[in-house]
Parts: sequence; C-alpha cells; structure tokens
Amino acid sequence: MFKKVLIANRGEIARRIIRTCNRLNIATVAVYSEADADALHVQEATEAYCIGKPPVAQSYLNIGKIIEVAQKSGAEAIHPGYGLLSENANFAKACEEAGLQFIGPSAQVMQTMGSKLEARKTMKAAGVPIVEGVETAIENAEEAKKIAQNIGYPIMLKASAGGGGIGMQLVEDEKDLTQAFESNQKRAASFFGEGTMYMERYIAEAHHIEVQIIADKHGNIVPLFERECSIQRRNQKVVEEAPSPSISEKTRNNMLQASAQAAKHIGYVNAGTIEYLVDDNENFYFLEMNTRLQVEHPVTEEITGLDLVEAQLLVAAGEALPFTAETVKKTGHAIEVRIYAENPKNFFPSPGTITQWLLPEGEGIRNESGVMANSVVTPFYDPMISKLIAYGTTRHEAIQRLTRALDDFVVEGIQTNIPMLQQIMQTEAFIKGETTTKFVEYYYQPQ
Amino acid sequence: MFKKVLIANRGEIARRIIRTCNRLNIATVAVYSEADADALHVQEATEAYCIGKPPVAQSYLNIGKIIEVAQKSGAEAIHPGYGLLSENANFAKACEEAGLQFIGPSAQVMQTMGSKLEARKTMKAAGVPIVEGVETAIENAEEAKKIAQNIGYPIMLKASAGGGGIGMQLVEDEKDLTQAFESNQKRAASFFGEGTMYMERYIAEAHHIEVQIIADKHGNIVPLFERECSIQRRNQKVVEEAPSPSISEKTRNNMLQASAQAAKHIGYVNAGTIEYLVDDNENFYFLEMNTRLQVEHPVTEEITGLDLVEAQLLVAAGEALPFTAETVKKTGHAIEVRIYAENPKNFFPSPGTITQWLLPEGEGIRNESGVMANSVVTPFYDPMISKLIAYGTTRHEAIQRLTRALDDFVVEGIQTNIPMLQQIMQTEAFIKGETTTKFVEYYYQPQ
Repeated sequence: MFKKVLIANRGEIARRIIRTCNRLNIATVAVYSEADADALHVQEATEAYCIGKPPVAQSYLNIGKIIEVAQKSGAEAIHPGYGLLSENANFAKACEEAGLQFIGPSAQVMQTMGSKLEARKTMKAAGVPIVEGVETAIENAEEAKKIAQNIGYPIMLKASAGGGGIGMQLVEDEKDLTQAFESNQKRAASFFGEGTMYMERYIAEAHHIEVQIIADKHGNIVPLFERECSIQRRNQKVVEEAPSPSISEKTRNNMLQASAQAAKHIGYVNAGTIEYLVDDNENFYFLEMNTRLQVEHPVTEEITGLDLVEAQLLVAAGEALPFTAETVKKTGHAIEVRIYAENPKNFFPSPGTITQWLLPEGEGIRNESGVMANSVVTPFYDPMISKLIAYGTTRHEAIQRLTRALDDFVVEGIQTNIPMLQQIMQTEAFIKGETTTKFVEYYYQPQ
Repeated sequence: MFKKVLIANRGEIARRIIRTCNRLNIATVAVYSEADADALHVQEATEAYCIGKPPVAQSYLNIGKIIEVAQKSGAEAIHPGYGLLSENANFAKACEEAGLQFIGPSAQVMQTMGSKLEARKTMKAAGVPIVEGVETAIENAEEAKKIAQNIGYPIMLKASAGGGGIGMQLVEDEKDLTQAFESNQKRAASFFGEGTMYMERYIAEAHHIEVQIIADKHGNIVPLFERECSIQRRNQKVVEEAPSPSISEKTRNNMLQASAQAAKHIGYVNAGTIEYLVDDNENFYFLEMNTRLQVEHPVTEEITGLDLVEAQLLVAAGEALPFTAETVKKTGHAIEVRIYAENPKNFFPSPGTITQWLLPEGEGIRNESGVMANSVVTPFYDPMISKLIAYGTTRHEAIQRLTRALDDFVVEGIQTNIPMLQQIMQTEAFIKGETTTKFVEYYYQPQ
C-alpha cells in the first residue's frame, strides 16, 4: 500500500479522502489555493502546499504545479477526487510520465469514455443498450436533418466532448434544427476545443439510474448496485439514493450485468460509474460513464458497508479486491442530499461567511462537510458545502431520518438549499419513489 | 401511538429521544433547570418548561413538578431516559397514578430489580447463573464472617440498595471484615435509606458483558445481542462495543437465552439490560439488571439497524414488537466512547465554556452530543457531554474509524478525556479485544 498520497482536490471530498488515508496510516499531501488557506482539508492533511490563486485554472487545474508538489513531497500516488482534474486524461498521463500512480483508470480509458460519441460506440460494441441515434459524427445541419427524420422528433443534439449535462440541446421541431446544430457546434468548439456533434432520440421523462463499478488489475469486476439520481436542478443532482425505488429486481440485475460487461469490454480498472436513462417500461439506455469517484458514493457505502476510497487505493496499489460480486450484499436504504450555498428560489450561489453551523447528529446520520463555523464560502468554487446522508432499514425510515436531520441542520450567514430539500422530502411523489428527471420542474415550488 | 411525550431528562439522551419522536411525528415536551435554559434539548423540543434550579434534587428529580408539567402540556407518556428518575419505582408509580404512561417496565418490576438482593434471588429462581454468595440479608459482622469462610476470600460486600458500582466493598482478608461490614452498613443506611447487606465471591478480573432485552405486552421477548463494557474508570463505563470480542458463539447464545428466560420470569416489558461478569472460562454470572435504556444503546442499534427508542415507544403504547429473535440479525461491529468533560489525568470534572466544538464526520461515524460551540458545561450534572460511535464491517475497521474520528474531534475551552480514549485505541490489549474490568488500572498511563 502507498505510504503517502497527494489529494488534488478541495472541500468535502478532500476531507473524505484524507479520512480514509488517516485510518489506513497513509500520509496525505493537500494542495490549496490562496482562497483556501484556512480550509479544513489543509488543516487535516499531513502536509499542505499552496499551489496558486483562485480561480481553479490558476491552482487546482495546474497540472505541472500539482505534479511538482507530489514529487517534492514524496507522494507516490495522486487521488483526483471528483470534478477538477479527475476526468482529465492529460493529467492521468502526466502522472504516469512522472512515475506517480494516478488513482483512477488508465489515461486511455478516460480518453475513450470522455468522448461521448466514442463512449456510445464502445458501449454498443459491448452489448450495452444505447438510445437510438448515431455512432459517427454528424458533419453538418443537412446530415442532421436526415438523421432526425429517421429518429423522429424531439431529438437531443449532443457535443461529443460534453458531459454531465453540459453541451446538449433539445430540438423539438425540424424548423429549429439548422440553427440549433450550428450554434451548438460553434459553442462546443469554443468551449471544449472541438465541435464534434451527434444526436440521440430524446427521452422526455426518465429515471437517471447509475451503476457503481469497482475493478482491479487482476480482472475482478464488481458492480456495487445502483443509485437513483433523478432529482436534479440545473442538470446537477440534488438528491441521490440507493437502491433505486423505481426498478424491479430483474431490471436491477440486468443493469448490473450490463455494467460489469461494459467495464470488462473496456478493461476498466478502479471505481467508475455507468449512468443510464430508464424509461417507464424499465428499458435502460447508456447515458455516459464517469471514470472517477462520484459525489454520491456514500449511499453505496451505506448499503454495502464498503469504503470506496479504500477500495480505490487498494486497486491503484495493484492489490486484488477483497470482495466479489457474490460476497457483497446490500442492506437497508440510504439517501444523500447535497447542501448548496445558494438561493433556494433561483439556485444562484450565495457566498459569504458561515456564522452558525450545527450539523445534525444521531442514529443513521452521516455528514460530509467541507466547512465549519466561521468558514468563508468564496465565489470561486462549486457551491456544494456539505452532504447529508441518512441510512434506514427501509426507505421510509431513511426519509424520516433525513427529514428530521434537515430540520436540525443550522446554517446561518449564507443561504442554502435546505428549504428546497425539506420540501422535496415532503413531496408525495418523492415519498412514493416516483422520481424522474422532471421532478424539480414538476413539483418544486420555491417559497 | 402517542401524540405527545414528555422527556424527563437532559443532555444528549434528551436530544436522542426528541429525534426519534420528531421522526415519528410525536410532539415533545422538554423540562429543564435554570442552568439548562440555553440547552439544545430545550431548543429542539416542541415545548419546554423550566422546573426549578440546579442541582437535580430541585428540578430533574422533582417528581411532582414533572407530573404537573406533563398534565398541563397534555403529554400522554413520559420517557425517563437514563440516570435521574429512570430507575425510580416511585416515579413510575406516580406516572401510573396520574394516568401517564411511563416508558419503561412496571413499578413493581423496577422495585424488584432495584433491590440487588431481591434481584439475585429472582434471577436464581429464573435459572440464571449467579456468583456464589447469599440470597438473604446478612444481619451482622459475625454472620458475615461465617459466610465469608464458606465462600473464601476475597469477597465482595454489597448493599442491596446500591448498584452501578455504588455501595460495594472488596474485602481481601478476614481481619478487615468486621470494620468493613459495619461501616458499609452504616453508609448504605444513610445513603440509600436502608442498610441491607449481602455478599458475593469476588471475581478479580472479568469481562463486563451485558445483554439488551426488549419485550412487549404481548409476551414477545427479544434479546438484542450483547455489549462488552469492561473498560471503566471510577466504576463508570468509558468504552462499549457490540458484539463482545471475548466470548464464543456458544457462550453468546447461552447468555442471550438466559437473559430472555430472566425477562420472561419477571414479566419484563420494555427495554432492559442484564449485566453479567464473565470469567476467563466464559462462565457468566448475573450482576444486576438496568430497567431502562442504557447510555451505550447506540452500539446495539448500529449492529441491528433498530431504533431502540422507537421500540420503547411502540411497546409502551401497547403495540407488538415488529421483529422477533429470529428476524433480528447483527452485522458488523460498533464501538462507543463516552466523551467526558474531565481532566484525563485524575478524572476530575472540568466545567467551563466550550469555545471550539468540531465533531468528527464521515463514513461509519455517529455523534450523540448534548452541547455545541459556546455551550456552558456546568458542575451540576454528569460530565458526559457527548458520545462518539464508530461502525465498521469488522472490529478492526471500527477501531480504525474511531481512532481517526478522535483525532478529528476538536474541543476547546474545557478539558476532556479524548487523550485517554486515544491512548486506549492504541493499546495492544484493546486492539486484541482483551478488555477486562482491570483494563484502565493495568494499561492506562495518564500523560
């Protein structure tokens, strides 16, 4: 096992990784921007180095600087967390070249799955169901029109370099297609550096369900059940749970099997997540693969008893997984809500100083926060400041515990989305487990 | 189910009970002393009433005042928590007479088990192993001498009205017996109002292992496994875990069966704990029964997934338990440590204002605290300010998580026993699970 690991991230996920490293007696190296000098991850790591100013481009995305700190501090491996450099194949490559173990899959696999068009092609070849559409780039609006006529409207135009809800546009009618295609192609080219476009049939209302995978270098691939993450705002997840309340055991097994098959086909190693859209008839379609730890990994940990960060470290160190698909069992139900420093009416960020901070406690409650009383929430980073996870023997108990914990949560000095989360917990459709990607649009009423 | 419950307690256990009530939509009535006006349990209850000044005799032990508040507020039931009035049969009787449901066993059962000599007799009749000794009161020092000669020294002199480590004295040699007997009899008479004495063989080094019982009014008795609580200072538990690392599956089953038998014999209803001393050969002997919820109940909740406060409420409301000995399963391992506001060198209380308070977070960590930043720890009450519980798939993982969490725990302004707990976590005998009641004496070295 590694003796020292650098964590190329900040906030709650940096603390999360430090905790498991501490537990396993692995020394940790934190990096931070000038805006994060007082952050908790800086205090809790064994060593910490300032790597520049905010915003992220000048610090947390500075590959050269991070590699330099890793080498100077004697770290043997780098954990990228999520976001930031976590899905950057160039970063993985730079680690490899510097003799540092990147804690994630190979740069080549990251590259394949990072191109959404390439990923679609690869998944189709692996036998994973994909949404009707194309597997080659669409050159121009004329070609797009022909394809759309075959698929039938509405269609979803997507940039191959996009992902996570970015770089896609819904087109409902042929008259809008030319303009949509051209403007999106241009935007993708300027945003991602390349304008490759493709198209899929649009599934209006669906469940977003994803399968957690962990795989080692010895050919062991273990699907760790699924998470339902349909409740989103601005294409970002707000509530995540495991298991999904909306699929049958048969569909679950089919999805787990398809995901293991996909991971095997691409020679995937380390933790990864395969996201699907699932329609009302429980047909599931590959959406994208996240080649890293997810924000919502705790719900999987809660129902399996596993430590996914530990599993990532083990696998990266070349060890075999200490469990198999047969030995891993799920028990109970877990729900995570993301606490954002934002105005709950319009979802605009709400930076400021946290004057009061009291976390909920007790039975079945897990907190993963990046802040404390007197922390300053700056405008430079993602506004997610904490995650609250409730576990229960049943989904009902998990919801009750989460509801109660949200009531106990005290945050003053900044606005948060806690009122929104409280409302969701009391929405009948949520209580019934009827959560689709349209949930917030249909049910959320800002007060 | 009840609509409104009064909680006749304070600190973390009052918050614990409020949480479950909130979750089940039961309104809560808090009572508090003038010293606790700003306490968290007062803020978190639906209603709160001041019932007098500190110390406890003038407020939290004022039966008449508490019953009056219950009636005025329209509460239907009273949860006594632990300590304070929780094992006071007169309080249970007063509740009955006032038409309030006492959340615990009947006053009569409390009375029987509250007399340690009576409890010994009853347990013997139930077929539960007891330590060699007497089942009738010893009248005088002469009689004590004769009995001690039969048992053999060392012996333990005990006051029948004592319990929880109070009212007992070790006698190693006959020459000390007369003086010990007379002074103890006198002390018991003045301390407990009655001086009934008895005697047991002294078991020098043993495991303190207790079995959690829950029983309903319909004759269902479910033993909820055991807890090992051998690590104590000043006869008070410091570290508790479930399951016990020091007994075989066979002994475990025998202890659970004996405990269920004991509960059946006395017609026990609600949650209770039967404490045993277990020697090196895994012989177990009845020590005493606690007719209430224990401080350490969370470790049982962690390994069973149950909410013991919910179970207590259900049973008190006359409902049948929704689980049986066959359906309840245990998974993993949980360890609790008690955080005391005390000097870790001499265990003297350390009252004061908490200036910094940062709870550990993350995977497998549960906090149950009674304070927050800026809370004032007064000298009037038990110095336990918080409990930290770690769960792991294995005992090893639970220890690792607890060790890490203790490192993350920030308390400033008062002294705590956290350094002692950190040392225990690193003691080889603890890591090996070799914990006896002599643990602190043998291994703890105040720094």
